[in-house]
Amino acid sequence: MDKREESLPPHDAPTATIDDRGHDRDPAPREAETELDEDDRLKPEFVRDVIDLVEAGEDEAARERIGRLHPADIADLFELVSDEDRPSLARVLGDMLSPDVLAEMNEHVREGLIDLLAPEQVAEIASELDTDDAVAIIEDLEEEEQQAVLDAMEPEDRAAIEEALSYPEESAGRLMQREFVAVAEHVTVGDVIDRLREDRELPTDFWEIFVVDPMHRPVGTCQLSWIMRTPRDIAIGDVMKREQTLIPVDMDQEEVALRFQKYALISAAVVDRAGRLVGVITVDDVVHIIQEEAGEDILRLSGAGDGDINEPIRETYSARVRWLIANLGTALVASSIVGMFGGAIEHMVALAALMPIVAGVGGNAGTQTLAVTVRALAMNQLTDSNSWRAVFREIKIALLNGGTIALIAGTATALWFANPGLGGVIAAAMIVNIFVAGVAGVAIPLLLDRLDQDPAVASSIFVTMTTDSMGFLAFLGLAVASGLTTL
Amino acid sequence: MDKREESLPPHDAPTATIDDRGHDRDPAPREAETELDEDDRLKPEFVRDVIDLVEAGEDEAARERIGRLHPADIADLFELVSDEDRPSLARVLGDMLSPDVLAEMNEHVREGLIDLLAPEQVAEIASELDTDDAVAIIEDLEEEEQQAVLDAMEPEDRAAIEEALSYPEESAGRLMQREFVAVAEHVTVGDVIDRLREDRELPTDFWEIFVVDPMHRPVGTCQLSWIMRTPRDIAIGDVMKREQTLIPVDMDQEEVALRFQKYALISAAVVDRAGRLVGVITVDDVVHIIQEEAGEDILRLSGAGDGDINEPIRETYSARVRWLIANLGTALVASSIVGMFGGAIEHMVALAALMPIVAGVGGNAGTQTLAVTVRALAMNQLTDSNSWRAVFREIKIALLNGGTIALIAGTATALWFANPGLGGVIAAAMIVNIFVAGVAGVAIPLLLDRLDQDPAVASSIFVTMTTDSMGFLAFLGLAVASGLTTL
Repeated sequence: MDKREESLPPHDAPTATIDDRGHDRDPAPREAETELDEDDRLKPEFVRDVIDLVEAGEDEAARERIGRLHPADIADLFELVSDEDRPSLARVLGDMLSPDVLAEMNEHVREGLIDLLAPEQVAEIASELDTDDAVAIIEDLEEEEQQAVLDAMEPEDRAAIEEALSYPEESAGRLMQREFVAVAEHVTVGDVIDRLREDRELPTDFWEIFVVDPMHRPVGTCQLSWIMRTPRDIAIGDVMKREQTLIPVDMDQEEVALRFQKYALISAAVVDRAGRLVGVITVDDVVHIIQEEAGEDILRLSGAGDGDINEPIRETYSARVRWLIANLGTALVASSIVGMFGGAIEHMVALAALMPIVAGVGGNAGTQTLAVTVRALAMNQLTDSNSWRAVFREIKIALLNGGTIALIAGTATALWFANPGLGGVIAAAMIVNIFVAGVAGVAIPLLLDRLDQDPAVASSIFVTMTTDSMGFLAFLGLAVASGLTTL
Repeated sequence: MDKREESLPPHDAPTATIDDRGHDRDPAPREAETELDEDDRLKPEFVRDVIDLVEAGEDEAARERIGRLHPADIADLFELVSDEDRPSLARVLGDMLSPDVLAEMNEHVREGLIDLLAPEQVAEIASELDTDDAVAIIEDLEEEEQQAVLDAMEPEDRAAIEEALSYPEESAGRLMQREFVAVAEHVTVGDVIDRLREDRELPTDFWEIFVVDPMHRPVGTCQLSWIMRTPRDIAIGDVMKREQTLIPVDMDQEEVALRFQKYALISAAVVDRAGRLVGVITVDDVVHIIQEEAGEDILRLSGAGDGDINEPIRETYSARVRWLIANLGTALVASSIVGMFGGAIEHMVALAALMPIVAGVGGNAGTQTLAVTVRALAMNQLTDSNSWRAVFREIKIALLNGGTIALIAGTATALWFANPGLGGVIAAAMIVNIFVAGVAGVAIPLLLDRLDQDPAVASSIFVTMTTDSMGFLAFLGLAVASGLTTL
């Protein structure tokens, strides 16, 4: 585990220009970038200055300021400025608005920019990108816009894109690159290195090479570090690792992301239905998916839809209002339960003041369980093997929580209203509701998952409806049953 | 963008045994594993069979069944079986319970197993792991247990671990490996390859080599693919990429993860305060952090604490109950507002049935905005540059949502209670509360973030308190003001 390093003796190497694709993508050492704050975000002053320059028509000065940014930061710049400023910023940037920048950009912001471009320009941009990035840009376009762009592309590129588009959205087929290095098992390390040095057409950035049989089916993968550590005359077949995670071309991207994570993959071979190697997915294409998928649950659970701050308001509105209307509907259930106890409340109006507490705390307890369950399901931690254990676990926790809250709420109420009976009723209602919340919070998402529904989407509506209704029913019902009040 | 491949002519290569560290980690081709379901999770039948074998004392059969699993799957197996079964499973596995397996395991489950081992055994396991994995295991141990393990380690390994532990938890210093290849700028490609072939002590699995100056400060990085594509006599300095993302050794892991994601890094140099290269972080160590950090928000927002289904119940209880008690406190605010309107409710008990709807829908609207804002903050999408725009955006959406919900709820109420006045009151209250919810949902997390507080943790309590109180106040207040009822 000790640190090993190479420090070789001095040596006069002739400088030489070599293929430098992929080298000078970053115009400046990141650590020197004064444009970024300590959190690696563009400083507000910088953003303001740039926009001022753009509006003042000082294009050169603006380009100079932006010139030192990494493509990912230029993409951020577009996301940070207002919709109105984006077109003029794009105009000023011109060719600095590179394919790389567009590939890094938030899809909604990118769509806005793409709309400003002619199909030929989009086609040119797409041609410069790896298939996966090109597809990401083109798949978002309107139907006929998409066709126009494809028509403007080189046949070879168009074929690759069209093939990618033939796979379902969010599938491995759309995620993979078609540029990779594949060799036969018997090829030697020396042959591989020589060929890589000669053939300038081969990709420059890759991490593993793939070994295929005559049918072009993957038989192993080989990390470049293993090749470099092996004598020239050894066959790749003796260096490669036979065990590998193969990704079916139609696998969902969420599943792909989970595999990369579980098996700590850097790149993986994508195979078609016949088991032939058709592409490669590298971890950097997967990282943002892991981010998205993991972050989606919180948005789905709250019914915030896509949840992207760059999403057009129209779309955001329709996503959210649907959810609120659904909540309005379920709220009626709880409300009608209260309605049933109108008389009881009239006789003892304190109940009206206390009932929201029972419902509210129950709702929170349910949300806690729900959040934990949804996460565990998303991370494949919760399967049929341990789901019953998870339910019992939540029941135990619910009883502990319920007991504690009942004690506090009961005592406080008894003292506040100088009414021990009322304290006992709210305590009992708390235990009941928090117990129900715990069971519903774990059982409902598990059930939805079993029915192949996304547990994150629908669960919370049902859970809160349950805890609201149960809270009112238990509290008001017990109040009547205990003779504290009458209907 | 077209697909390029190598297919070299046949060639008789002598087979040879070469250093195979890191090759045969996976005992079987993943696609052949019948133990896994289509979602790549261990099948319940398989888990049950294994446990049955273990309990029946048929150790060999059990080992045979488990033998074909990837370490990550063996780790999952331990997480899926009950606490009672884990020790016996560990006993049966024996040496198959490899360091890799422990490194992949959920920390709570791992702690349980480690407790069964003697410090010497833990020390031996740690010595076999890369520094980062070893640290992950040791940092969770109790103080004196940790000391015992360190004492049992080789001085060299102990030093590395102790140095790592000297960095703050969840910092780059704990995440990095100390095994890497660093060379001087003038060294040629040929020298590097020869040295890699000769020196068996060098690490086997790496993706980039780092170029350092005489002061051992990084001056560039070099992808192995670039080296392999370059003639032997060229100096590394002419192949390397000078621009690179340097990770300060004390940077928080969440920040590290965001950089890897933003700049699509595979590995990055970690530098000490003097700018010297001290370690390397590779993307596979970062992927699970991206997962965790992105998934944490949903748990924090709901007060579910750590939110791990393997967490000891005691810890889960104390995390969740604290939150529920806090909610109990805030619920009192809303409740006392209702109390103020006791008379109004007595005169018109329908208000008691309707007021939860106003509060509930408002709460949901607030949670939607909150979720979106928290995510955007976590992904560095929301900075001082666009936070005002985000607020105005949410206000627009709130007005749209409020108007729609007000229309529906107002009409329904007017008809249901045959009371247009009541319909008007609930409609107005809805608009007010959803507007307040929208503002609170975006403003509160932004404020907390500005105060360097985690917006995910405290926001939702404040937001729901606001929407509950506002809902009751607006609805009951307007009912009185409009003369529908009297206090």
